[in-house]
Amino acid sequence: MPEQLTYYGNKTAIALQEANAKYQYFEIDFTNKPDWFVKVNPAGKVPAMTYGGPAVNPDQPSPESTKLSESAVLLEFIADLHPSSGLLPSDLVQRAKARFFTTVVDTVVAPAMIAWVTQCAPASTIVDAFKKLQELLPENGRFAVGDAFTIADAGFAPLYVRVLLSAEGGVHKGGKEHASGVLDALSSPELAKFKAYGDRLVARPSVDTTWDKEASAAYLSKLVLGN
Amino acid sequence: MPEQLTYYGNKTAIALQEANAKYQYFEIDFTNKPDWFVKVNPAGKVPAMTYGGPAVNPDQPSPESTKLSESAVLLEFIADLHPSSGLLPSDLVQRAKARFFTTVVDTVVAPAMIAWVTQCAPASTIVDAFKKLQELLPENGRFAVGDAFTIADAGFAPLYVRVLLSAEGGVHKGGKEHASGVLDALSSPELAKFKAYGDRLVARPSVDTTWDKEASAAYLSKLVLGN
Ligand SMILES: N[C@@H](CCC(=O)N[C@@H](CS)C(=O)NCC(=O)O)C(=O)O
Ligand SMILES: N[C@@H](CCC(=O)N[C@@H](CS)C(=O)NCC(=O)O)C(=O)O
Repeated sequence: MPEQLTYYGNKTAIALQEANAKYQYFEIDFTNKPDWFVKVNPAGKVPAMTYGGPAVNPDQPSPESTKLSESAVLLEFIADLHPSSGLLPSDLVQRAKARFFTTVVDTVVAPAMIAWVTQCAPASTIVDAFKKLQELLPENGRFAVGDAFTIADAGFAPLYVRVLLSAEGGVHKGGKEHASGVLDALSSPELAKFKAYGDRLVARPSVDTTWDKEASAAYLSKLVLGN
Repeated sequence: MPEQLTYYGNKTAIALQEANAKYQYFEIDFTNKPDWFVKVNPAGKVPAMTYGGPAVNPDQPSPESTKLSESAVLLEFIADLHPSSGLLPSDLVQRAKARFFTTVVDTVVAPAMIAWVTQCAPASTIVDAFKKLQELLPENGRFAVGDAFTIADAGFAPLYVRVLLSAEGGVHKGGKEHASGVLDALSSPELAKFKAYGDRLVARPSVDTTWDKEASAAYLSKLVLGN
């Protein structure tokens, strides 16, 4: 029997879905975290996971389970647990490219998104970050490093859908005007290749079916507008 | 025959040494980078690598080789190329712990080090970062996640030796006084466990024998003091 695995987040884990993994899901509202969540992740951030130990209720995490956090670490762990999922390409250079893509997402795209959504940074902040990702996309291939859906895609998709949600809903400190700059850029030729990739992410069943737009919109608006 | 591999850095690659890999080494003075280096890494940062393609001089990189950068990506790649090196533990939870350690090094320790060395941030900036790492060290075990030397150690060692060099040499924007705060903390009981770990890193042949103190001191002083 595989070990128990509980995933804490505010969005079902795309990589776990792709791997057809058995897991418990527990929703964490990160704008209002339960006190016990520090036992899962002392840093208080989602996503986080418990692995192994006794079967328990997610809100009563066992001291015996392994506690894991940081999205890039979780993605590698899920790929390691499910080697046949294809989440990590078998080719070593492709694996390195997938990891490099994730590094750019974590160090360029995620900070840009936070600055844009919560600090009124101009739309160009996001657009420039998307251009960096676009440069990394393969000549041919549907996803970040080729035709297969990998950890690179699983890591970026949750950010991408949130940017869309925020831009489309105008949920943004700078208001609707400010948000629409991103949509304009996405429909312009300079981001055409990136947009086609983004459309494939949005259409991917693991992304589409697990994505609770309403709950996310509520989070975003609480985060951004304080209501 | 394995593919050619050229490593560009200002310090021989510890992970490549640990893996007993065959590689070409090319020293890059990152305070004075050669123009052609953008062909290896458009971001202009070290460490970087070329892999595959024809055998060429390092200062004439071939368009046919794969270009890799970002230290965490290089570490995984080297571990993937040399699975028997033990650089990645075989146990999946241990692997995740090694990756988490590296994430903390990249997101907490590296920024703290930059702030301390170049922006006069107080010694406590570094000391707090070291305490975070200390919390991650195993109950028993000589290195970051156990008795084996892994990518976590290979990633942290170059930063650690530079902090020591800077602290011992007083090469620091804040001057000798400022630098000695880190040495004082390292010899205090609150960092005893971390210090013992650091001592093992410094004594590790792959770290010790490849570490050009004089060149590094010259870089540091150019970087910090502009001379
Ligand atoms: N580097 C982390 C970032 C995680 C993160 O910032 N998560 C946010 C939500 S998307 C969070 O939990 N914030 C709550 C808080 O900071 O208290 C990762 O990639 O997992
Ligand atoms: N995130 C990168 C950081 C690399 C980095 O900042 N390298 C510095 C030297 S330690 C550099 O090359 N600086 C030159 C520059 O920024 O122009 C990694 O982990 O590899």
